Amino acid sequence: MTALLTTANWSSSHWIKALRAADPGRNFVLHGVDEYDPASVRYALTWKPPEGLLPSLPNLEVIFNLGAGVDAVLSDPDLPDVPLVRLVDENLADRMTEWVTWQVLTHHRQGLAYLDQQHNRLWRVREQPIAADVRVGFLGYGVLAQNAAGIVRALGYQVSAWSRSPKEADVPIFAGEAGLAPFLGQTDILVVLLPLTDATREIVDARLIDALARDGALGGPVLINAGRGGLQNEDDILAALVDGRLKGASLDVFQTEPLPTDHPLWGAPNLIITPHCSAISDPASVSRYVSRQMAAYERGEPLINVVDRTRGY
Amino acid sequence: MTALLTTANWSSSHWIKALRAADPGRNFVLHGVDEYDPASVRYALTWKPPEGLLPSLPNLEVIFNLGAGVDAVLSDPDLPDVPLVRLVDENLADRMTEWVTWQVLTHHRQGLAYLDQQHNRLWRVREQPIAADVRVGFLGYGVLAQNAAGIVRALGYQVSAWSRSPKEADVPIFAGEAGLAPFLGQTDILVVLLPLTDATREIVDARLIDALARDGALGGPVLINAGRGGLQNEDDILAALVDGRLKGASLDVFQTEPLPTDHPLWGAPNLIITPHCSAISDPASVSRYVSRQMAAYERGEPLINVVDRTRGY
Repeated sequence: MTALLTTANWSSSHWIKALRAADPGRNFVLHGVDEYDPASVRYALTWKPPEGLLPSLPNLEVIFNLGAGVDAVLSDPDLPDVPLVRLVDENLADRMTEWVTWQVLTHHRQGLAYLDQQHNRLWRVREQPIAADVRVGFLGYGVLAQNAAGIVRALGYQVSAWSRSPKEADVPIFAGEAGLAPFLGQTDILVVLLPLTDATREIVDARLIDALARDGALGGPVLINAGRGGLQNEDDILAALVDGRLKGASLDVFQTEPLPTDHPLWGAPNLIITPHCSAISDPASVSRYVSRQMAAYERGEPLINVVDRTRGY
Repeated sequence: MTALLTTANWSSSHWIKALRAADPGRNFVLHGVDEYDPASVRYALTWKPPEGLLPSLPNLEVIFNLGAGVDAVLSDPDLPDVPLVRLVDENLADRMTEWVTWQVLTHHRQGLAYLDQQHNRLWRVREQPIAADVRVGFLGYGVLAQNAAGIVRALGYQVSAWSRSPKEADVPIFAGEAGLAPFLGQTDILVVLLPLTDATREIVDARLIDALARDGALGGPVLINAGRGGLQNEDDILAALVDGRLKGASLDVFQTEPLPTDHPLWGAPNLIITPHCSAISDPASVSRYVSRQMAAYERGEPLINVVDRTRGY
């Protein structure tokens, strides 16, 4: 009865150590390093598993996905029909909040322009709107976005959100297809935190960018995407940065990762690129979460945070 | 009965317009632009007034300082012996909180290193401690620091503060001379928000830097100064950045402002320089504050936020 770990290019040795520390009584093996009998594997703990690995495990009972997004694992046509558990890590939400708050502040407080002045040894105070005059809109209002919105509101920004279906929330919600254009029309800084589904693929395109507010205190709209690269049309974003329809952008995710060295986005103006590091799972806390779930499952209790495959998240 | 405005190199026309809009019944004149009789001036609204101007006003009753710091005006040996009112602007505190939070996040989330990677088209995820493992210490815990600490705590950082005298607070307080070394020894990111007095002049020197924690999650201490340039020994800060005793720094204030073009700090590694823009007064809200105080004073009510000249703030 083995739990199998596979983490693509992450630091696997760090992960296997954290899992063994969190749950010393269990047999954890690392795919590609440890010997193991495929028939003994009951749990798979995966991030971007190698093709064909999961279907080769005849007695697999549960898959734990080691990241918040499950689009990569759901896109596998050979995905075994067993419960797929999503990672819900408070730690992850707090890290995403750090990154989103940081990017909102950097654009609001003109960080790139001031760094540029610094490189040129130029001392010049720039006109600066207050946070209360800047409207931050969250496209997608799940756990991560709600956590980030709490801090962004506390900083004084005007916050609203768009959600696929109407929901009770602590900020004004625009819902469904009909709510999208009105939502974008009152948004100065757009924070994209949607799941990637067929309905959201490349939703961030020229049409969406052109629907953002242009009458705001920043002098133009800003795009922040910490969701998934598949949500964005990168040609459209590049064009909007070059011709100024976007005042600035922060992208942590891309259609192809790592972003290829010759990709034109590397040279785009007013763009901050981070290498999909906005919210990295903390091995220690994720290991405790997985261990707790396996123990509960073995006591006959239901698994929590199981992915609904028809919704896609 | 005139109120005289002098704002050094700020945008005076903007200020005089805001004052006249806030209090249309009063005669505001702009020094150097408008004609006025010195004997008619009852109030001076000043930021770095020209030498000799204030003593030349025989009927001056109140000086309103248009910034949070009063060291510039207190250092004037000819300062008339009339009440000096400090600016306490909620807006100003919120703007300082934006700047401090932004700088804390930038250092914690390795903003300069990631920008450097971006310039080199390098995709590499860096090890990243969580906020809960980073200790932010406020040197000085007045209104501005308390406001910023609220957000920094909400982001999950461990927050403490040093204060000249013991005080009740929502974070652990280290007080007085005896508390300084223990405070510094458990601080990873030091946020300096002290008033500039004889006791605090150049308090940020090699000795203070060397007393900061070196066992923290960031791999070295970070200095953030948004107080006054006179608080810092700039040779010591430069040396500590060059030899790595400081992992990074953000300075918004300098001994000489504007920072001279040939100043070596412009070329220091891991340093973010902003041009004393962390908390710029918003003319509209400051004008309302000054107008309210003048009206109350004329009704015979006491002025609020009057500077204690012996304490220096």
